[in-house]
Amino acid sequence: MTFSFTSLGSASAMPTVDRFPSAHVLNVHERLFLIDCGEGCQLKLRKYGFSFLKIHEIFISHLHGDHIFGLWGLLSTMSMLGRTADITIFAPVSFGPVLDSFLKHFGAGFLFKVKHVKLKGDDLLPLFETKSAEVYAFPLNHRIDCFGFLFREKKPPRNIRKHLIEPNKLSLYEIARLKEGSDVAREDGQVLENDYFTYLPYNPRSFAYCSDTAPFEGLKDYVEGCDLLYHEATFASDLSAMARKTMHSTATDAARCALDAKVAKLVIGHFSSRYKNTDVLLNEARDLFPGTYIAQEGMVFEVPLVKPYKSNQSNL
Amino acid sequence: MTFSFTSLGSASAMPTVDRFPSAHVLNVHERLFLIDCGEGCQLKLRKYGFSFLKIHEIFISHLHGDHIFGLWGLLSTMSMLGRTADITIFAPVSFGPVLDSFLKHFGAGFLFKVKHVKLKGDDLLPLFETKSAEVYAFPLNHRIDCFGFLFREKKPPRNIRKHLIEPNKLSLYEIARLKEGSDVAREDGQVLENDYFTYLPYNPRSFAYCSDTAPFEGLKDYVEGCDLLYHEATFASDLSAMARKTMHSTATDAARCALDAKVAKLVIGHFSSRYKNTDVLLNEARDLFPGTYIAQEGMVFEVPLVKPYKSNQSNL
Repeated sequence: MTFSFTSLGSASAMPTVDRFPSAHVLNVHERLFLIDCGEGCQLKLRKYGFSFLKIHEIFISHLHGDHIFGLWGLLSTMSMLGRTADITIFAPVSFGPVLDSFLKHFGAGFLFKVKHVKLKGDDLLPLFETKSAEVYAFPLNHRIDCFGFLFREKKPPRNIRKHLIEPNKLSLYEIARLKEGSDVAREDGQVLENDYFTYLPYNPRSFAYCSDTAPFEGLKDYVEGCDLLYHEATFASDLSAMARKTMHSTATDAARCALDAKVAKLVIGHFSSRYKNTDVLLNEARDLFPGTYIAQEGMVFEVPLVKPYKSNQSNL
Repeated sequence: MTFSFTSLGSASAMPTVDRFPSAHVLNVHERLFLIDCGEGCQLKLRKYGFSFLKIHEIFISHLHGDHIFGLWGLLSTMSMLGRTADITIFAPVSFGPVLDSFLKHFGAGFLFKVKHVKLKGDDLLPLFETKSAEVYAFPLNHRIDCFGFLFREKKPPRNIRKHLIEPNKLSLYEIARLKEGSDVAREDGQVLENDYFTYLPYNPRSFAYCSDTAPFEGLKDYVEGCDLLYHEATFASDLSAMARKTMHSTATDAARCALDAKVAKLVIGHFSSRYKNTDVLLNEARDLFPGTYIAQEGMVFEVPLVKPYKSNQSNL
């Protein structure tokens, strides 16, 4: 039941010897969501052992090169590996002609389709759902159209409280209905109350991704209560004028968003190449939001399973 | 008086954890010629300390992604660094629309021009010359239009044999003329013979680049007598049928070319991802051509200055 985030690149527009451009993986139950795809993404995917076969969706926040120039190599390699499964790229409208040009010149032998789902609008936009997750986009505040992404794990099926099966002579039918979340009425008029007979095995987890953006009123609402928030922190706050001008965030801005949105943990990335050492950014963010971490490339941020209070108390 | 070759990527179409796609640097007197530009090229340039400012020409052998997908990030970074010096890309005709598409979508803020010089024809094609070097393209034999490149250091100015200045009372004018390579006639009828008064300080050096290609009659003529030859060696010879089918070379093919062309040293690269260890390729090539080396990423192959025999003997 994995729910984990890994950065493949923590550089901003200008990569450094140590930091690749933006690319990230969210692993939800072994389905890999690739979020931004900067140059070298395929090399990092290999380095950290992520299977290309588990990627079916790619999310592109915006059309700056440091977030998409890794797409061409990745898609080409997928083709060389004999891929036949279609791939969907969620990206702003302006991605359309860029993708068309790539496919025209380099996509002749592809045995899979590359579908482009256009991101637009200025509110939370439901994108799709899998068996395990629901995915949304939301607008950010950058120099060009830019979107954040929200991934919510679906509620798991409820577990039956096993010690109640025998005394209550629960039938297989009744157990199945209870696990779906329903109360069950017996012929004799007894009602098997769902809350009594079942419990949620764990709380659904959530992750939000915010890059690149200047802070804005309303951002916190999109990411509220997330277990894990990735937020860009291109500059330290002594360069807040530069951050405003380029429509980026400082480490303090990122921490402020995490604090206001009451998230559990914050990961910062997209660091300006001027910071050889990112401690200044980490320390600045931690002053405001202690649960901040650096998007160290290759590090896996696992969101743990948390059992709801009631089930902890009574059954587990 | 540097003349050195460095591989930034020794993978073939499919990169591996250890090997990036094709990209190479030839340093001729501190002007850097970038030869092919696979994904991650800018990251490797930084890693190995090559200044982007010293690059004015890029040579693209052909339009397969593993040879060009690093261009977009590199050009974008050059722009972000404030570059104003134009850059010339020598590439096959089909590169034109690909470059146009890139510039249309991502080149809006560029303060420098990206010029495309079209490679075509089926014979040695002079491309341009600098103060120190002459550069040529020549056709290879691949699945699409593909070109090799030949870099010849120009003859250096001749050195005066200093111990002859005083006894012969050479004037500054006479010295200057002699250094240019001319004989000098004096008013009294004496002729100062260039060969006697001067010597070539070193032999001009040369480098040839062959990737990707199936072997063909005539290739050796283009690269004949080079001090250093880079030649692809995608497969070992037990996969020669695969090499023929994909129009690539085996390590033996590369060594055969080096042997027939009487080059001094061979560097092989563009290795199939199936070879975790490249010893099999190195050993196979060395069986035929002992002066073979692996294009280890970041390793500098310096072509040493060699003084002509006569000057060694008499003056140096």
